[in-house]
Amino acid sequence: MTIIITAFERSPDGGKGLARDTRVRWALEEVGQPYEVRPVSFREKKEPAHLALHPFGLIPTYEEGDLALFETGSIVFHIAERHAGLLPGDANARARAITWMFAALNTVEPPILELSIAKILESDKSWSQERLPLVEDRVRNRLGQLSVRLGKADWLDGAFSAGDLMMVSVLLRTRPSGILNEFPNLAAYVARGEARPAYKRAFDAQLAQNTGKALTG
Amino acid sequence: MTIIITAFERSPDGGKGLARDTRVRWALEEVGQPYEVRPVSFREKKEPAHLALHPFGLIPTYEEGDLALFETGSIVFHIAERHAGLLPGDANARARAITWMFAALNTVEPPILELSIAKILESDKSWSQERLPLVEDRVRNRLGQLSVRLGKADWLDGAFSAGDLMMVSVLLRTRPSGILNEFPNLAAYVARGEARPAYKRAFDAQLAQNTGKALTG
Repeated sequence: MTIIITAFERSPDGGKGLARDTRVRWALEEVGQPYEVRPVSFREKKEPAHLALHPFGLIPTYEEGDLALFETGSIVFHIAERHAGLLPGDANARARAITWMFAALNTVEPPILELSIAKILESDKSWSQERLPLVEDRVRNRLGQLSVRLGKADWLDGAFSAGDLMMVSVLLRTRPSGILNEFPNLAAYVARGEARPAYKRAFDAQLAQNTGKALTG
Repeated sequence: MTIIITAFERSPDGGKGLARDTRVRWALEEVGQPYEVRPVSFREKKEPAHLALHPFGLIPTYEEGDLALFETGSIVFHIAERHAGLLPGDANARARAITWMFAALNTVEPPILELSIAKILESDKSWSQERLPLVEDRVRNRLGQLSVRLGKADWLDGAFSAGDLMMVSVLLRTRPSGILNEFPNLAAYVARGEARPAYKRAFDAQLAQNTGKALTG
């Protein structure tokens, strides 16, 4: 069955790969599943047709036959559960890989989202400059803990998994601020993720779409 | 095998059930699995023994034989996957229930966490009063979208699932601010969750522990 995902018609990041469709594209590339992309404009995101697919008016969504999903974590997990390559076979190792998916999305990403909001939505506020270091320190605190846990390992728990895919994707958002590079082992970890052929294909596909060179959609 | 979870020795909320161990207790009660609780003090949370279990120094954690997990989402999913009662049998319905777990944790909870931070960690800042309405509106926006999607249904997608367990738990945190009650269908949805016998048992257990009446740990 054809897999169809939605992505921004033009991502706000201009194709840096930070929009969440890149995470789903990456997962699909890791497991070798072809997919089609339906671009969604900022106006269409808030219209009934898209809201029926995604109640929060975000991207990406995932359609496969009569199954329709939203939420990147859920979509990546769905892909990882059905195709080999993103979750270990051993039951305990699998549960730990899933733990890292949730850790990326519910413990590491929230302060990173808060920093984006502070920089973008609150940049014109009177408190912006004074408050920013506080928010940056919250990101730094989380990354510090993660850096200690990763140590000298290549990936978070044995072989590359959906947990690493999600964590690398979340950490990529901290590179523009310079915070990622304060933790050399995390910067190297992200670079290992980006060096994977599947990531490169996913990145190139979203870049082509965002620069108007897409063949799909 | 004995299931052991960690919880605050004394929760900052004094036993209102908002600490995340309540989510895990609730899941275990729904599927009828007994468990033991190891209380962790604020000092112990940051010590090597606990950091080995939870790299971010948070609660809860989950131990079962040689499996050790952290992250509430991952723990609840692990319980839901292994025992009947929290995930539907139909593959598509199961994927949608998992979607709501991720939506609760990665889309609905982040603005709620931001509001808690604004109220607790930034209450003494010069910008606190001026900024608060902005943060509250972000919570209101998400809850408004969720309210539209829930409509008149009892649960988010058919029967009660781990997705509802997580969403009700996340929404409970918006009641003190009064925002939850601005959405009568969401307030009723949360009340339905709280009325479940398994929730009541979980709530009572954490309350007993936080008021010094616990028999476990």
